[in-house]
Amino acid sequence: MENLTFTIFGGTGDLTFRKLLPAFYNLQAQKKLADDFSIVIIGRRAYDHDSYCEEVKDWVKKFARLPYRIDEYERFSKRIHYVQMDFTDLNNYEMLDAFYKAHHLKNHIFYFAVAPRFFAVIAKGLEKVENACLGKVIIEKPFGEDLASAKALNKDLEAFFTKNHIFHIDHYLGKEMVRNMQAIRFMNPIFQDVWNAKYIEHVQISALETVGVENRGGYYDQSGALKDMVQNHLFQILSLVAMEQPSTFFGEDMHQKQLDVLHALRSVEKLDIHDSVVLGQYFHYQNENQVKDDSMTETYAALRLFVDNERWKDVPFYIRTGKKLNRREMEIVITFKRTNPDVDANVLLIRIQPTEGVYFQFNIKKPGDSDEIITTSMDFCQSCSDFNRINTPEAYERLLQAAVQQDTSWFSKWDQIEYSWSYVEQLKERMKQEQLPLFTYMADSDGPKEADELLMRHHHKWNSIS
Amino acid sequence: MENLTFTIFGGTGDLTFRKLLPAFYNLQAQKKLADDFSIVIIGRRAYDHDSYCEEVKDWVKKFARLPYRIDEYERFSKRIHYVQMDFTDLNNYEMLDAFYKAHHLKNHIFYFAVAPRFFAVIAKGLEKVENACLGKVIIEKPFGEDLASAKALNKDLEAFFTKNHIFHIDHYLGKEMVRNMQAIRFMNPIFQDVWNAKYIEHVQISALETVGVENRGGYYDQSGALKDMVQNHLFQILSLVAMEQPSTFFGEDMHQKQLDVLHALRSVEKLDIHDSVVLGQYFHYQNENQVKDDSMTETYAALRLFVDNERWKDVPFYIRTGKKLNRREMEIVITFKRTNPDVDANVLLIRIQPTEGVYFQFNIKKPGDSDEIITTSMDFCQSCSDFNRINTPEAYERLLQAAVQQDTSWFSKWDQIEYSWSYVEQLKERMKQEQLPLFTYMADSDGPKEADELLMRHHHKWNSIS
Repeated sequence: MENLTFTIFGGTGDLTFRKLLPAFYNLQAQKKLADDFSIVIIGRRAYDHDSYCEEVKDWVKKFARLPYRIDEYERFSKRIHYVQMDFTDLNNYEMLDAFYKAHHLKNHIFYFAVAPRFFAVIAKGLEKVENACLGKVIIEKPFGEDLASAKALNKDLEAFFTKNHIFHIDHYLGKEMVRNMQAIRFMNPIFQDVWNAKYIEHVQISALETVGVENRGGYYDQSGALKDMVQNHLFQILSLVAMEQPSTFFGEDMHQKQLDVLHALRSVEKLDIHDSVVLGQYFHYQNENQVKDDSMTETYAALRLFVDNERWKDVPFYIRTGKKLNRREMEIVITFKRTNPDVDANVLLIRIQPTEGVYFQFNIKKPGDSDEIITTSMDFCQSCSDFNRINTPEAYERLLQAAVQQDTSWFSKWDQIEYSWSYVEQLKERMKQEQLPLFTYMADSDGPKEADELLMRHHHKWNSIS
Repeated sequence: MENLTFTIFGGTGDLTFRKLLPAFYNLQAQKKLADDFSIVIIGRRAYDHDSYCEEVKDWVKKFARLPYRIDEYERFSKRIHYVQMDFTDLNNYEMLDAFYKAHHLKNHIFYFAVAPRFFAVIAKGLEKVENACLGKVIIEKPFGEDLASAKALNKDLEAFFTKNHIFHIDHYLGKEMVRNMQAIRFMNPIFQDVWNAKYIEHVQISALETVGVENRGGYYDQSGALKDMVQNHLFQILSLVAMEQPSTFFGEDMHQKQLDVLHALRSVEKLDIHDSVVLGQYFHYQNENQVKDDSMTETYAALRLFVDNERWKDVPFYIRTGKKLNRREMEIVITFKRTNPDVDANVLLIRIQPTEGVYFQFNIKKPGDSDEIITTSMDFCQSCSDFNRINTPEAYERLLQAAVQQDTSWFSKWDQIEYSWSYVEQLKERMKQEQLPLFTYMADSDGPKEADELLMRHHHKWNSIS
């Protein structure tokens, strides 16, 4: 679309400085922004255009993937308008409307880089902006604190924006290898027809972090691993791994097949909860800033779930995420059934971060005069290849570009979010009823040993290939 | 078995010096030869034990895979007996029998490292050696010049030796990755169930050489690529690639399944011969030493064959071999059917020589913001890995060890040889009847362009991944 106006609420926040503006700079440097594309920054702080752009310059220098160049940045800063405004005050939106009109800014995309409690007031305020209701809105996670608040937020947004114009950012969906899942699955006959319970023994999805809660203790202590990571990112990835082949890889076709997976998740009431969930908290978490002294919030969660459809009959999906672990790794691991009990399984590992690539473990005869079968591997490290010398875009860069191009495929849809919230809430409710313990684990460890035992009981093992 | 005696007829020939004795030295250095294992060398030349061992020392230093060590070689030379003897003179075999008795040498394995025309006279002579008929015999290629002569040779040998004690050397069967085929196919579910016409588009087996006929012009000009390479090596490998799963990977079970493949080869009379065979001769071949000026012997052959059973219905097997080509490469290439006409095929490449490894080509989304599907690859280079630092045994070393251990799995059996000879003979007969042309090709080229066209007509292409 021509003449797009991209307005960021929360324009002096960390996300804007670290991610959004460097990503836009990268897009411009690659000639991916139309000349008439404008960026409007809404912030409370007393900047003007020049001082704001001076501030942003340092962030771009530091965080943009592509090199800072004076002339490029000059052109970039010309797109930027700084509007000093308290967006919680409804009285200010007439001024905003006037500003847009004065600068002939229309065709709106709004980015709500603010806490969810402000969504309603902004949507209300935008009623004063001409044709804002025809625009798109991009929402950051967390989308609500639970199902009820998410529903309320959604109601506020849908009261103003068209349902299909609400884009929920899940930055994991912008990651190269997550977007590559569909190509790997559906463009390779060797993988395509074995992607089912007949061939696959179990699936693992891990999002391991080495950091703790850092300066987000206040938010995190209210949330925990299940809400912060499982409900959104891990369920998204699970649904991409397990989905049926969509008729196209775009928008609604993709979403519907992903949603089908969520609907097929074995219902919480049918789970043996003690054999399905392990929660952990790292030692000294309770001493973190803004965390309660007696906090029972989980900083680690491991789950054993099932997708109860024909394709995935009785195949466990193990998912885990945690903070303060001994490695940073986001990966999908497909372990195939053995043809022979004496040899190791074939394993396909899709690495999402910190490196990007595909690793395949298979069996050969031991070289030499032995007939022993041993396991070996092939490795395609995307982030080690020539491609990476051209420096692949970061998640936000992809997602902002997709938003600008009206491609909804790589955003979460409300019905997915709603179903995940409801599933996680039921889980939390069951856990509470059944007094599921919270295990502690050492910082820099693999997480609670009980998560290892969860798999061991079923003769499986968390992936240790790194 | 204890107290084995390994007698080499042709003990002053190139094969013995370059391959057999260095291989035995390697086996001893790895403690794979019993202390009472003896090697008897039959040669016409006037060596005694010491001068023969002195001569062999230089060959071991140069050609043994493991380092020469004085004490090791000292022990090695103690195993060796040199018997100066004209083996074509039947009168000499009583002396040989006396020699064996004098040195308490029994439990015989005979290695006929001599031209096939001498097989009969040696077998006849061995009648004079006590219990020689209980022994084993190892035969070098070429086993006959055609079906009739092969049958005659076999008759001579079977008149003396037990059928199961006749081991036909095919040194390609000693190669690491050829022996690894079965593990790759049957120990990996991801390959096992796609190894058929539903998934595989075509198979290529190539044995490309950069050398010409060198000093073997006299032999080669009588033989040619079909007899020298296709009848034995390439048909062996084809039968390993295409065979059904045997109940065990040993001896007769393997042979029977390999033989089934040969029997299932589409009969020569059903082939459109002009669309099935391309023969070539390199420029200036006729000027080679001992080659006829008007020679029509092929130094290159490409074939398009079919295995007419359920597994391989309509899957072309392209095999090719040639001399004076632009690369030395022995490889098996499995090209899978496409799921999507717009993307490249999955390709599994098994490299046999000069490097050993497995290469797998598959599709991913192009890294970056494009949704284009591109082809990438994973590579397992066995000869680049740690394993190779322990220096894998060479073909002869494996095969001699197998013979010593009475393992017949990796030798050709007469029924395979007989069937291949008969097939190749029928091919040659058809080619003659239909006046199949002999195309010329430049040295250091890919071979005759007509071989490329053979595949092009069927929308295929010789592998160029190297």
